[in-house]
Amino acid sequence: MTTFHWQLNVYYEDTDAGGVVYYANYLKFLERARTEWLRSKGINQYQVSKDYGAIFAVRSVSIDYKKPAQLDDQLSVSVEVLEVRRASLSMEQNIVNNNDELIVNAAVNIVCLHDESFSPRPIPQTIYEAIK
Amino acid sequence: MTTFHWQLNVYYEDTDAGGVVYYANYLKFLERARTEWLRSKGINQYQVSKDYGAIFAVRSVSIDYKKPAQLDDQLSVSVEVLEVRRASLSMEQNIVNNNDELIVNAAVNIVCLHDESFSPRPIPQTIYEAIK
Amino acid sequence: MTTFHWQLNVYYEDTDAGGVVYYANYLKFLERARTEWLRSKGINQYQVSKDYGAIFAVRSVSIDYKKPAQLDDQLSVSVEVLEVRRASLSMEQNIVNNNDELIVNAAVNIVCLHDESFSPRPIPQTIYEAIK
Amino acid sequence: MTTFHWQLNVYYEDTDAGGVVYYANYLKFLERARTEWLRSKGINQYQVSKDYGAIFAVRSVSIDYKKPAQLDDQLSVSVEVLEVRRASLSMEQNIVNNNDELIVNAAVNIVCLHDESFSPRPIPQTIYEAIK
Repeated sequence: MTTFHWQLNVYYEDTDAGGVVYYANYLKFLERARTEWLRSKGINQYQVSKDYGAIFAVRSVSIDYKKPAQLDDQLSVSVEVLEVRRASLSMEQNIVNNNDELIVNAAVNIVCLHDESFSPRPIPQTIYEAIK
Repeated sequence: MTTFHWQLNVYYEDTDAGGVVYYANYLKFLERARTEWLRSKGINQYQVSKDYGAIFAVRSVSIDYKKPAQLDDQLSVSVEVLEVRRASLSMEQNIVNNNDELIVNAAVNIVCLHDESFSPRPIPQTIYEAIK
Repeated sequence: MTTFHWQLNVYYEDTDAGGVVYYANYLKFLERARTEWLRSKGINQYQVSKDYGAIFAVRSVSIDYKKPAQLDDQLSVSVEVLEVRRASLSMEQNIVNNNDELIVNAAVNIVCLHDESFSPRPIPQTIYEAIK
Repeated sequence: MTTFHWQLNVYYEDTDAGGVVYYANYLKFLERARTEWLRSKGINQYQVSKDYGAIFAVRSVSIDYKKPAQLDDQLSVSVEVLEVRRASLSMEQNIVNNNDELIVNAAVNIVCLHDESFSPRPIPQTIYEAIK
């Protein structure tokens, strides 16, 4: 599978008093890239929730902070799908800065849930076909 | 009417690379105080949404930033109701630090909405009685 | 003066349990647009802080919430400078969605500060020339 | 070593359009508990930065999302130190709700850094004594 990339700029909102990006905010960047990866395949999460009553939820994240990102950095966030199962998928994601330095490396596991009960359910077939 | 006060600590998450609290985050502090003010009157917003299909939404905010708050500051956020109408209310809120310096002054207008359509609706009667 | 526009997508991080964008997060959107407006004029805030010891801080915001934005909305945020003074500037900013509906209207006042003392200082001359 | 606990309430700011706490925001909760754990030992991070030029940074997090937390939940966040080394420490943190259900389990590794260069440095001695 090919690797998807999404670019973003670091704003004041992303930083903290240490002068660098706040550690929780990298998870926002990771999710923006996953959302845009889905959108690039014609999948809109709001529509998925409406049409199938299905949402994607993060089951686990393992994240290594390699180097801090700073205000006004331009970052590139990757999405690489490692495995797609019937009700879940696992991916690797990296964030690099404009000097090609590795900022963050993360392993992310996603599950598909009923949007009311939050119980696991199979990934809707058309989405499964699109991402596998 | 009496003025309600809510205390909170400033964490890294609240600050930005300027070394002070990020300007949007004061609106979070204001809302925490409004939520705790409602809770102090026995009103739980999650329950209100379930029981009445009603939510409170902010219609407008006018906020003056007087002095920056910093990491590890202990802040006190006030809620003073100025007027309660059938479907809306207006309040004044201040944030002061532990040296009693004024950090933020804000005027906030709230409306009551149907939680699906987002159209205006009267404040549920028991809540109206509790806050007026 | 011409009006600057910046586009952004609404992600899960921006929304709340009401199903719409959380009211404080629009202030992040407003600031992203102001940052990109400065960048479009060759001004990088991180560099300004390093070169001049100057930062721009928000002195006041008056914001009207007209209509809620939702997950996956594409928003356009405008920046229109109303007046540039020696140590401050005022602007009007609007946010509209992809149906051209007005989401937010805001008046924002910015001051230029020494980045250590947070006392007012004139806007650095080259920046003043670029934005006036 | 004893386990430290910190209580907090879930506000709208913490939730997303899925109706539950946004996955990145649990990392804020984890950090609030770590900050309060340090404060309970007389350690103020802002003062540490001023006095020693040292900051604590997160090197890695491994987090499992067990069950979603919701608006108005009262959560308890634990801090259990597993090991303190000369320039780093590792801890386990759990978040439980008011029904004693496990919401999040996390392993967190922290390093001590020079606050300008972000290069590793020993934990200041008085802090080392306090937390080991």
